[in-house]
Amino acid sequence: MRLALDAMGGDLAPAAVVEGALLFAGAEPAVTVILVGDGPRVRAHLPLRPPPNVELHPASQVVEMSEHALAAVRSKRDASVRVAFELARRGQADAVVTAGHSGAAMAAALAVLGRLPGVDRPALAALFPALGASGRCLLLDVGANAECRASHLAQFAVLGAAYVRACHGVAAPRVALLSNGEEESKGTPLTREALALLRRSDLDFRGYAEGKDLFSGELDVLVTDGFTGNAVLKASEGVAAGLTGLLQQAVDRAHLPARLGGLLLRSTLAGLRRLVDASEVGGVPLLGIRGVGIVAHGRSSPRAVASALRVARRTVEADLEGGLSAALARARSWLPTRAVKGPKGKTPGPI
Amino acid sequence: MRLALDAMGGDLAPAAVVEGALLFAGAEPAVTVILVGDGPRVRAHLPLRPPPNVELHPASQVVEMSEHALAAVRSKRDASVRVAFELARRGQADAVVTAGHSGAAMAAALAVLGRLPGVDRPALAALFPALGASGRCLLLDVGANAECRASHLAQFAVLGAAYVRACHGVAAPRVALLSNGEEESKGTPLTREALALLRRSDLDFRGYAEGKDLFSGELDVLVTDGFTGNAVLKASEGVAAGLTGLLQQAVDRAHLPARLGGLLLRSTLAGLRRLVDASEVGGVPLLGIRGVGIVAHGRSSPRAVASALRVARRTVEADLEGGLSAALARARSWLPTRAVKGPKGKTPGPI
Repeated sequence: MRLALDAMGGDLAPAAVVEGALLFAGAEPAVTVILVGDGPRVRAHLPLRPPPNVELHPASQVVEMSEHALAAVRSKRDASVRVAFELARRGQADAVVTAGHSGAAMAAALAVLGRLPGVDRPALAALFPALGASGRCLLLDVGANAECRASHLAQFAVLGAAYVRACHGVAAPRVALLSNGEEESKGTPLTREALALLRRSDLDFRGYAEGKDLFSGELDVLVTDGFTGNAVLKASEGVAAGLTGLLQQAVDRAHLPARLGGLLLRSTLAGLRRLVDASEVGGVPLLGIRGVGIVAHGRSSPRAVASALRVARRTVEADLEGGLSAALARARSWLPTRAVKGPKGKTPGPI
Repeated sequence: MRLALDAMGGDLAPAAVVEGALLFAGAEPAVTVILVGDGPRVRAHLPLRPPPNVELHPASQVVEMSEHALAAVRSKRDASVRVAFELARRGQADAVVTAGHSGAAMAAALAVLGRLPGVDRPALAALFPALGASGRCLLLDVGANAECRASHLAQFAVLGAAYVRACHGVAAPRVALLSNGEEESKGTPLTREALALLRRSDLDFRGYAEGKDLFSGELDVLVTDGFTGNAVLKASEGVAAGLTGLLQQAVDRAHLPARLGGLLLRSTLAGLRRLVDASEVGGVPLLGIRGVGIVAHGRSSPRAVASALRVARRTVEADLEGGLSAALARARSWLPTRAVKGPKGKTPGPI
């Protein structure tokens, strides 16, 4: 297996990305990691003799976090993230991993690999830790599509359910639609239209759910537009970071017995923080593109990059693309799609 | 001062509400609490000789949490929440407190007391704990208005800023608009229009902010539509509840040293939970109505009800209505308002 890694993507790139690639490559000798980026800058973080399963593929440009995603991907034909997806298109890589601009990753994936038949708008998803046996709940979209139509939300539901089925072994994913209350009268015209659509679906659809239900363990997939999803994701990260910070502060400031307690509790605390630390999840696929693209957190540490590479390996092994395509085909009778795509393999030209 | 308390509102009503009224009345003998609700059911939770500053005012109907707010308030003329606002309209109460259906509280306030001049859509706000000196950030709207226009968002900004100025002593509130990224190119047509509007305002407006900025201590007011705000509020409550639950679970399950640590840390943990426990905040005013209406959490405990009554007392003392009216008058040059309201005192008739 060959994974193309955007060496220039992420707040700590290329240092943390290269270090993460080495971590992963050391543990997984059967998988090759292709570092895509600026040769000299990448090499500066590689040992003199890199492991045989770490390669370098040149790309002279970088999409900065502050850039407009679509414009940057269009104008920078040699941007590392775009070149990585080109490797996937040419069959030289089985998946792409990036910790860079998620909007640019989506734009590059769309421009180079295109969408799966039945998908108008691929989505970006986030895995939340949840109580209960499943341990997690998928929220999507979390930022790829700030404005959505009801058919997009219904497509997200199909994609999200197929993803947790293929990659997390959930046989019958429980799907709900995010709203401002559980009663049918709640929501907006958008959510009410999506509610009606999803009631006709072949999914295990539970109707409206609220933000707190992400953590209840009673849902596997929660669907919303990218504006709301992004706000929920960022606020949740803020609460988690704030709470663990406050707890640490309380322990640090406490009088001796509690301080002793804090020291004894340290491993528990670290475990908790890991549970809510986005870097541990390691990355989530772009859902609805052809091929496999994994987006990791922008602040990814080397450990997080290695984790994202593991996610990519597992995603390829689980044949996510096959699972998504089958689910979309099954949904054809009830799921409206605007785009009529050509046969698989006939990818659209560059934008 | 006289506070009208909706005795039938809330998941634990009337028991917890009456108990909360007694708690408050015992501590604040100069304030009278009027319990509005079903006589026999309320009396069942009162001592044989109630304190002299606890009164009962009859109301034969109740708005249930599952009802459609506007329809219920229209059809149930003798609903406790509506009767409570009637007391305020007739000058028999200085403020209304309810832990019931927040939509019904808003509908009743609008029907009975009406809006302040310059306000098209009153908002429901939530106070979040934040790092830094201020210690809190106000998010609005959190559910009263699922669909908004840009002028509504701008009005929320004025109302929120005036509220933290009047009731939390923040001289120059820092205001931002919730978006899915800080760059101007982010957001939706709605947020971009509101951004342009607020840039022309007399507020200390910081542009776009993300969900995580609620907790950074760098903002006093964060503005969004009621659909997104509700999702953010509920998700944040979910994270906080989930994290403290997980921490408790970890402590309970840990081997002896960590368990010992847990025992020693117990007071710290309790303090943290208090910090994130909605019941401690006690209630937030409906912003933009005439008069004072305080909405407490639906699951309010007696302590939370007492806390909401304290919020009501402080809100009346701070002359919130005067502060809001002055801020709206100052904003008249830049703030679009659809509704042209009559002079103050000429409240609209019942809906």
